[in-house]
Amino acid sequence: MTTRKAPRRTAERILENTLALFNRFGEPGVSTNAIAAELSISPGNLYYHFPAKDDLVNTLYNQYEQALNPVLAAAGDVSNVDDAWFFLHSLVEVNWQYRFVFRNLNELLSRNRQLENSVQETIQRLTDSMRTLLLSLQRQGALAPPPVGWAPVATCLVVMLVYWLSYEYVQSPRTALEEHNAQNAALRGAAHVLGLLAPYTVPSQQAHLARLVEGYMQQGNTERSAG
Amino acid sequence: MTTRKAPRRTAERILENTLALFNRFGEPGVSTNAIAAELSISPGNLYYHFPAKDDLVNTLYNQYEQALNPVLAAAGDVSNVDDAWFFLHSLVEVNWQYRFVFRNLNELLSRNRQLENSVQETIQRLTDSMRTLLLSLQRQGALAPPPVGWAPVATCLVVMLVYWLSYEYVQSPRTALEEHNAQNAALRGAAHVLGLLAPYTVPSQQAHLARLVEGYMQQGNTERSAG
Repeated sequence: MTTRKAPRRTAERILENTLALFNRFGEPGVSTNAIAAELSISPGNLYYHFPAKDDLVNTLYNQYEQALNPVLAAAGDVSNVDDAWFFLHSLVEVNWQYRFVFRNLNELLSRNRQLENSVQETIQRLTDSMRTLLLSLQRQGALAPPPVGWAPVATCLVVMLVYWLSYEYVQSPRTALEEHNAQNAALRGAAHVLGLLAPYTVPSQQAHLARLVEGYMQQGNTERSAG
Repeated sequence: MTTRKAPRRTAERILENTLALFNRFGEPGVSTNAIAAELSISPGNLYYHFPAKDDLVNTLYNQYEQALNPVLAAAGDVSNVDDAWFFLHSLVEVNWQYRFVFRNLNELLSRNRQLENSVQETIQRLTDSMRTLLLSLQRQGALAPPPVGWAPVATCLVVMLVYWLSYEYVQSPRTALEEHNAQNAALRGAAHVLGLLAPYTVPSQQAHLARLVEGYMQQGNTERSAG
């Protein structure tokens, strides 16, 4: 049993540490030798588990896809503004956990065909979920029907979700993606995405949504200026 | 006169060709030697005009900033849906001309402090212009006042403008940024950005805006599927 368990635990430990290093320094800035050194294992041992750096990238991306599953599955149950806030905030938090993907997205997929396909599938899943979310909110009477259909709204929600962390990074490349900014980045991101729903919200829920958006944008910004 | 003119023309020729190569292959995929070879000049001659690759990047980024000036200056004169369409489409077209910036934005600015500052200034200028645009449209009676203020709307417009071409790239890395896609990419981008204004548009202009958004999204998508 121990001989079977040990390699699996090593692989998990490699993935955890690689994710932390990728998130901190960006995938292009982390070599496989640096990963081995961080874990105090030999490059040969790392190679035994993950023969190429892209195997690490693809396995971590697969973890990200898995982490999205339970969140996206709830899109059809979102029936009011509070549900929508929780749903969008959970999505931004999953993106935060795998933020190295979004930091260098185009660079990563330009040389990794498997990742290219996976990211396209993710974009499609996110878009479908946003449509489900919007239709569910409309069916429950929380959103009024849109003047131009939900398709462009769903696309804008996806663009905001996928690129929010890049937008944070551009404004503060040396600190935006550090661990201590997690909560505020997620709050600001979710508040802006939720804000896209504001003009469609029925009057009875509009004041509540406005309070959520303004409260969380404010909090995030104040603490960003202070820190 | 010829001795003074010649170097300036060489510098311009270098910049034009570098922009085309960066746009086509991405900045990280184009070496200074490849630029010299493309122009049939010696690496030493290239070095005489631009001692480092980042000098090329920064000079081209400066051109991009200049190209934004006349467009952004018109934000306060936008008074109806047609003006807004023209304004946003012009912005997306300028971004298209310098699309290498948006293709590898985080990578570029992570190693170029001057670019980092310039991009932050651009984001601020874009955000100010979007606020001016929204307030101008509201003052002219084209938009109703927003439930949560214009600040989050302006931010979403900027995120859409800055990341639209990345979103196109993710979905089709090998063809999205090729020259023949220019018109459709700009139409799709501008249509989605304009769509963000749809729910705020006053009833008298709403049908017109819906036609613009639906028409241009449709056209772009049909031709993308066909091509």
